[in-house]
Amino acid sequence: MSLQLGQIVDALGGRLENGDRHLQIDAIASLEDAGPQDISFLSNPKLHLQMQASRAGCVAIGPRVEAEARKRAGAYLVVDDPYLFFARLTQLWRRHHQLRPTPAGVHPSAVVEEGARVHPTASIGPLCHVASGAVIGEDSVLTSRVTVGAGCVLGRRVLVQPGAVIGGDGFGFANDKGRWVKIEQLGGVRIGDDVEIGANTCIDRGALQDTVIASGVKIDNQVQVGHNVEIGENSAMAGCVGIAGSAKIGRQCTIGGAGMILGHLEIADNVHISAATVVSRSIKQPGHYTGFFPIDDNGRWEKNAATLKHLHALRDRIKALEQTQKNG
Amino acid sequence: MSLQLGQIVDALGGRLENGDRHLQIDAIASLEDAGPQDISFLSNPKLHLQMQASRAGCVAIGPRVEAEARKRAGAYLVVDDPYLFFARLTQLWRRHHQLRPTPAGVHPSAVVEEGARVHPTASIGPLCHVASGAVIGEDSVLTSRVTVGAGCVLGRRVLVQPGAVIGGDGFGFANDKGRWVKIEQLGGVRIGDDVEIGANTCIDRGALQDTVIASGVKIDNQVQVGHNVEIGENSAMAGCVGIAGSAKIGRQCTIGGAGMILGHLEIADNVHISAATVVSRSIKQPGHYTGFFPIDDNGRWEKNAATLKHLHALRDRIKALEQTQKNG
Amino acid sequence: MSLQLGQIVDALGGRLENGDRHLQIDAIASLEDAGPQDISFLSNPKLHLQMQASRAGCVAIGPRVEAEARKRAGAYLVVDDPYLFFARLTQLWRRHHQLRPTPAGVHPSAVVEEGARVHPTASIGPLCHVASGAVIGEDSVLTSRVTVGAGCVLGRRVLVQPGAVIGGDGFGFANDKGRWVKIEQLGGVRIGDDVEIGANTCIDRGALQDTVIASGVKIDNQVQVGHNVEIGENSAMAGCVGIAGSAKIGRQCTIGGAGMILGHLEIADNVHISAATVVSRSIKQPGHYTGFFPIDDNGRWEKNAATLKHLHALRDRIKALEQTQKNG
Repeated sequence: MSLQLGQIVDALGGRLENGDRHLQIDAIASLEDAGPQDISFLSNPKLHLQMQASRAGCVAIGPRVEAEARKRAGAYLVVDDPYLFFARLTQLWRRHHQLRPTPAGVHPSAVVEEGARVHPTASIGPLCHVASGAVIGEDSVLTSRVTVGAGCVLGRRVLVQPGAVIGGDGFGFANDKGRWVKIEQLGGVRIGDDVEIGANTCIDRGALQDTVIASGVKIDNQVQVGHNVEIGENSAMAGCVGIAGSAKIGRQCTIGGAGMILGHLEIADNVHISAATVVSRSIKQPGHYTGFFPIDDNGRWEKNAATLKHLHALRDRIKALEQTQKNG
Repeated sequence: MSLQLGQIVDALGGRLENGDRHLQIDAIASLEDAGPQDISFLSNPKLHLQMQASRAGCVAIGPRVEAEARKRAGAYLVVDDPYLFFARLTQLWRRHHQLRPTPAGVHPSAVVEEGARVHPTASIGPLCHVASGAVIGEDSVLTSRVTVGAGCVLGRRVLVQPGAVIGGDGFGFANDKGRWVKIEQLGGVRIGDDVEIGANTCIDRGALQDTVIASGVKIDNQVQVGHNVEIGENSAMAGCVGIAGSAKIGRQCTIGGAGMILGHLEIADNVHISAATVVSRSIKQPGHYTGFFPIDDNGRWEKNAATLKHLHALRDRIKALEQTQKNG
Repeated sequence: MSLQLGQIVDALGGRLENGDRHLQIDAIASLEDAGPQDISFLSNPKLHLQMQASRAGCVAIGPRVEAEARKRAGAYLVVDDPYLFFARLTQLWRRHHQLRPTPAGVHPSAVVEEGARVHPTASIGPLCHVASGAVIGEDSVLTSRVTVGAGCVLGRRVLVQPGAVIGGDGFGFANDKGRWVKIEQLGGVRIGDDVEIGANTCIDRGALQDTVIASGVKIDNQVQVGHNVEIGENSAMAGCVGIAGSAKIGRQCTIGGAGMILGHLEIADNVHISAATVVSRSIKQPGHYTGFFPIDDNGRWEKNAATLKHLHALRDRIKALEQTQKNG
């Protein structure tokens, strides 16, 4: 696999300096790993020394570090946003070399039920199941072993990783003298355009109305999205996140790995939740929120955790000390 | 899709007031969303103002709020338990309209091995795998892409959501000078009647004896149930819960999303564990137990988390202050 | 199913005392459950009273408790490491009785794409998908509904439980004015020999280079391994663990259930992480590390959690008290 440097510049733009358009690029690589036939990029200008030390045949840089780039032996390519350039370069690379093609149409091992609508440009991979009434939009891809339940709708350019389940039943029961009586889940799942859904992720159908994933949302692996959840445009959530039923997540939010959003909460736009944080109340202000127990040596943790169970009492003792001192 | 109000009352009971039995009901909806052709319900009597403001054609209420219901324009239906009524109504709705039918028999794409026993009324959906010696009971449903391993037994009316794995190997190894030697898992999984198992949930087979899920248990998506676990009747657990090997959960327990039960623990009946709580010791008393770090603004969390690592030392300083004050 | 005691000793070694080689052993059982036709083992010498009380036909013990074993009625078998003996016995049991055989070859319902390489001794179970360019090594087993993506390589004797996904895309995006632009994942997954991968576990392909799981690693169910992660030899991780992208885990490490390793961190060899612990910094020293909020009665938790949000301020109040006391 290779591309000439000139082909890359022609496809993605940028101003090439000190470079040979005919240089054969064999791989995209990190600054550390890159050799003379590789192209790399500097996304964090603070790491410009690493860039200068890199053996990369060409480095994509932002305009602010051009003076530093000039000092290195090889070529450099000035682009507006080197990380975005890198993303587009990976896309060019995959497309050009036809890596892991996703052919339009339904793989013979897939089960597409009567009454499902699959756009002719969509790709339904091996051992997928698309139930009756489901809709798979233009250029969408179910990679492998994906289930899309009855009445669930995927927009355009939706990419679903293997094992994902869209449209399992939401978890709803009424209690009848100790026994659980199922609330049939009569809603569906509606997914916008340009959404990615990770491997073995589940998105439940709504109880009465639909669970809604807006356009541009990116969901990593092993994520659980409960019934009636709404996720706003361009929000992203990392692996192992859980979003309980009826939670509403705003636009442009991010949730770190294993973050948990409890049910019926509302999260405003532009809220960023750290990994492993439990969101137990609605968040109305944009910002960065965190809550997990800091890791420690096990022995120290045991002591501190034991003391934590008396924290409220400690506060009272501090109050009493203050009172006595004040009075004394 | 529609049902006449009278059909609903005839099927599910209740006393209809101010209502026309011929009113055509087009949907079940929340009080907020319901229009004149919809039926709704009031499960929390405190929200009776919302009920009075609802445009619903009919509202199911408990007897205690009948005075308030009389004030609204539309019909109301007095039932013992409106939420339970709602659950049964969703079942009626689905059945009447034949939504997502689960036909008895084995889908042609499913793999049912020789030596498996599938009751003729059970439904084995697309791309499921039922291994040799597995038993699927009366009226049970494997929806789509479910695996039931060798020798695993499902009772009657068990509903398994897509992607679930029943009877993967439990996680057991002996250590031989740094290398792990597999303990073959010779037990199975036994599941009672009326159990629901969520999408992509895993229930491991036992090491020597069976992992046991009693009748009436409801398990949400992405749950991990380790080998030799026993879960008592009618317990319910939300998404992303993990139950480590050999834990015993009592009856009528609930575990919130992402709750984690460590191995070999025993949880009494009627214990309720909050979301994201780690159960690290056996619980012998019924009650409500919690343990997760409270979410905060990231900056404040950083300060408090850093201080938490010195909490035990702070306690000692409080003690010293108290001692000095007492002596002074 | 049964084996004669002599057959067991001949296959696995050990010194049989008070025993009849012709005793028919019907099952392997715990000390508590075992009857006169069962074999059991004592892995923890402290529990020797339980061993003496056991009705087991034969008990495998370590040499240190032979005096105690002599006091019981039945046979005993002296072995170096009874737990390791137990592991090997389960293997003998399964092999001898041909339990859940994994026949070499590809199940007719599996999809093995052109260009995939499956060793003739490997077993590709029902409804598995092996993509083009993937390699499945000698004696490896994909049990049921496993996906191995393009270019992913599994070594010898790798055992993959149902529903696992090897080679889904890593989660990588660049942001372009609020919209996420996909970074195509051009790397693969490389898995060594003797690795076990749990049910519904996901191992993502690398962005540029491979995600690497070294030989002897054991991964439980529902685990998420991000792109470019490296896991060293013989490390083991329990269910629901998450390892974010580019983390490097050393050799002989263990991670308890639902432990979370944040991205780009490095964990040294011989590090042991407790269940539900968030690793938020690199760990350079071997040892045992923990960090989760201790469970408590919900009411007490609420008080302590509320106070925790003011912990840093409490520390300042203690300081002030100390200062005043010192000055007074």
